[in-house]
Amino acid sequence: MQRIGKNVLKLSGQTYISGSAGVAAKTESEGPLASDFDFTFPDDGIGQPTWEKAESELHKKAVMLAIEKAGRTPDKIDCIFAGDLLNQCTGSTFGIRDMNIPFVGMYGACSTMVLSLAAASVFVDSGAMQTAIASTSSHFCSAEKQFRFPLEYGGQRTPTAQRTATAAGAAVLEYGKPDGIIIDKVMFGRIVDKGITDPNNMGAAMAPAAARTIADYLTDTGTKPEDYDLILTGDLGYVGSQLLYELLQKNENIDISGVHNDCGLMIFDRDNQDVHAGGSGCGCCASVLCSHIFKRMRKGELKRILVVATGALLSPVTSMQNESIPGIAHAVELVVS
Amino acid sequence: MQRIGKNVLKLSGQTYISGSAGVAAKTESEGPLASDFDFTFPDDGIGQPTWEKAESELHKKAVMLAIEKAGRTPDKIDCIFAGDLLNQCTGSTFGIRDMNIPFVGMYGACSTMVLSLAAASVFVDSGAMQTAIASTSSHFCSAEKQFRFPLEYGGQRTPTAQRTATAAGAAVLEYGKPDGIIIDKVMFGRIVDKGITDPNNMGAAMAPAAARTIADYLTDTGTKPEDYDLILTGDLGYVGSQLLYELLQKNENIDISGVHNDCGLMIFDRDNQDVHAGGSGCGCCASVLCSHIFKRMRKGELKRILVVATGALLSPVTSMQNESIPGIAHAVELVVS
Repeated sequence: MQRIGKNVLKLSGQTYISGSAGVAAKTESEGPLASDFDFTFPDDGIGQPTWEKAESELHKKAVMLAIEKAGRTPDKIDCIFAGDLLNQCTGSTFGIRDMNIPFVGMYGACSTMVLSLAAASVFVDSGAMQTAIASTSSHFCSAEKQFRFPLEYGGQRTPTAQRTATAAGAAVLEYGKPDGIIIDKVMFGRIVDKGITDPNNMGAAMAPAAARTIADYLTDTGTKPEDYDLILTGDLGYVGSQLLYELLQKNENIDISGVHNDCGLMIFDRDNQDVHAGGSGCGCCASVLCSHIFKRMRKGELKRILVVATGALLSPVTSMQNESIPGIAHAVELVVS
Repeated sequence: MQRIGKNVLKLSGQTYISGSAGVAAKTESEGPLASDFDFTFPDDGIGQPTWEKAESELHKKAVMLAIEKAGRTPDKIDCIFAGDLLNQCTGSTFGIRDMNIPFVGMYGACSTMVLSLAAASVFVDSGAMQTAIASTSSHFCSAEKQFRFPLEYGGQRTPTAQRTATAAGAAVLEYGKPDGIIIDKVMFGRIVDKGITDPNNMGAAMAPAAARTIADYLTDTGTKPEDYDLILTGDLGYVGSQLLYELLQKNENIDISGVHNDCGLMIFDRDNQDVHAGGSGCGCCASVLCSHIFKRMRKGELKRILVVATGALLSPVTSMQNESIPGIAHAVELVVS
């Protein structure tokens, strides 16, 4: 492992993704990526009596499928790095509690997939672990209930609001004999708080953190946006993506619009699905990355990508106490061997 | 780094604690460890308008003091590993948001100090980071409000209940020229759920996880309890500690009672302070370890200790949905060079 500049860690080139799975529920399976998900549930209840249990079941499905695709069993996994948006991260813990795998709990709000992937990569690349899983989940109904209002209330959502994806994703990382998708570099972001206070506009709260991480990453690595087949943000949605272009163009003279896409804009069809500014939630980036994107990489359609997942580090309590919304963005660079 | 057995990681012997601080508030500063805390606040409000902001301020104080004691400034810290009990871990994020340090968010409930310390150690020992901080916090009033009832309700607490410490702790880890306290080994625990459902008896919920981690650790390293000057659990309190002895004795034929102590039993005087089964909360283990214990190690009174912090991975929602309480316990072995 080698530090590049102030922020980036270059790994050995031996840490790779040996299996992955993205799973989703009804609305996601009616969207543009339907055929790429590794498993879809016909409704958002996932056969469970509560939304929280449904989220845990989604999480479990993604992890078990990823382990299966890696040709492993849970007893061959050294560690799982997981977290989610639910209070005390119970979406993850209750999903994985019966797997008997050493567990490192992570919290990065909607950046959790990339945070977990980056942390797990450091553990695997350093030899601390031979195999590790990174996973996360989110559920529209458990998130609305917890962060805004229970669905039964019938609250109106603003045009800037995003729809939390009912989805989960998991990736198995291994060391040696790299085959397919390699984790080439990782970067842990810094908190950026530009004073945004509107909890119905997560894109605006998170865009400054994404801009900072992307600018720092390109500077440290001496690369340009065109060096990547794709710069993929987690879930800025429509509002946040436009703001990201503007911030990078005005402050850094960087134009990423030609190579950028956002998981929140990919998972739903904004013209024909009632999702306002797009998708969001930990499970959005996780499911899109671990199914659609990794499939495209394995087909050779994408050879080098920079994934930047953003998180809004607020809680309903902090917003009610008139606090602004701190944002963070973590990055991983993935290449096909 | 080297794996020992199925669970333990032996580090290089070069990763050490270059600075640490434990800070606390009123009730803690009236307890037995008063003179060992690096800073105490005269009341639980910490000069802030809300309990949540008070917790963030506590967290900030611990981190800034630890950096100062390490002879560093925030710009020389490569990464901070932090988390806490508040929903969406806002105790940590709002405490550190202005420090401009790359941030890895962790969630391990009351095990967070050892989880963060263990994760940060792997990063530093592997060369991924040169300097890293592990920190956490808790606040009696923010925890009661969130997990049980607002204080104004005047709810009765059961004899098995523990008092969340209003405290925080932080440690700075560095690589090379080891001086003082070295992180010798780390272990990430597995979730253990024995079906305990009483959210007013955290000790009982967490003791099985502590027993498993201690038994696995001793087996993997081929050591006995007497090989340690102290086996320190995070915050099992009185009920949990008794259960831990019983579980280890009956199931594993291991007697740790001669070398064991628990931060939850050390931070308060149960005979003269109204704290029921003892102290708890992430900040309990963090503040006791980073002030009292590290001071004793630096004085040479303790040369080799095993710290096992436990977490109860529940939320109020999971308890209301009739779920049992999964527990976890992470471990670090510290030695004085």
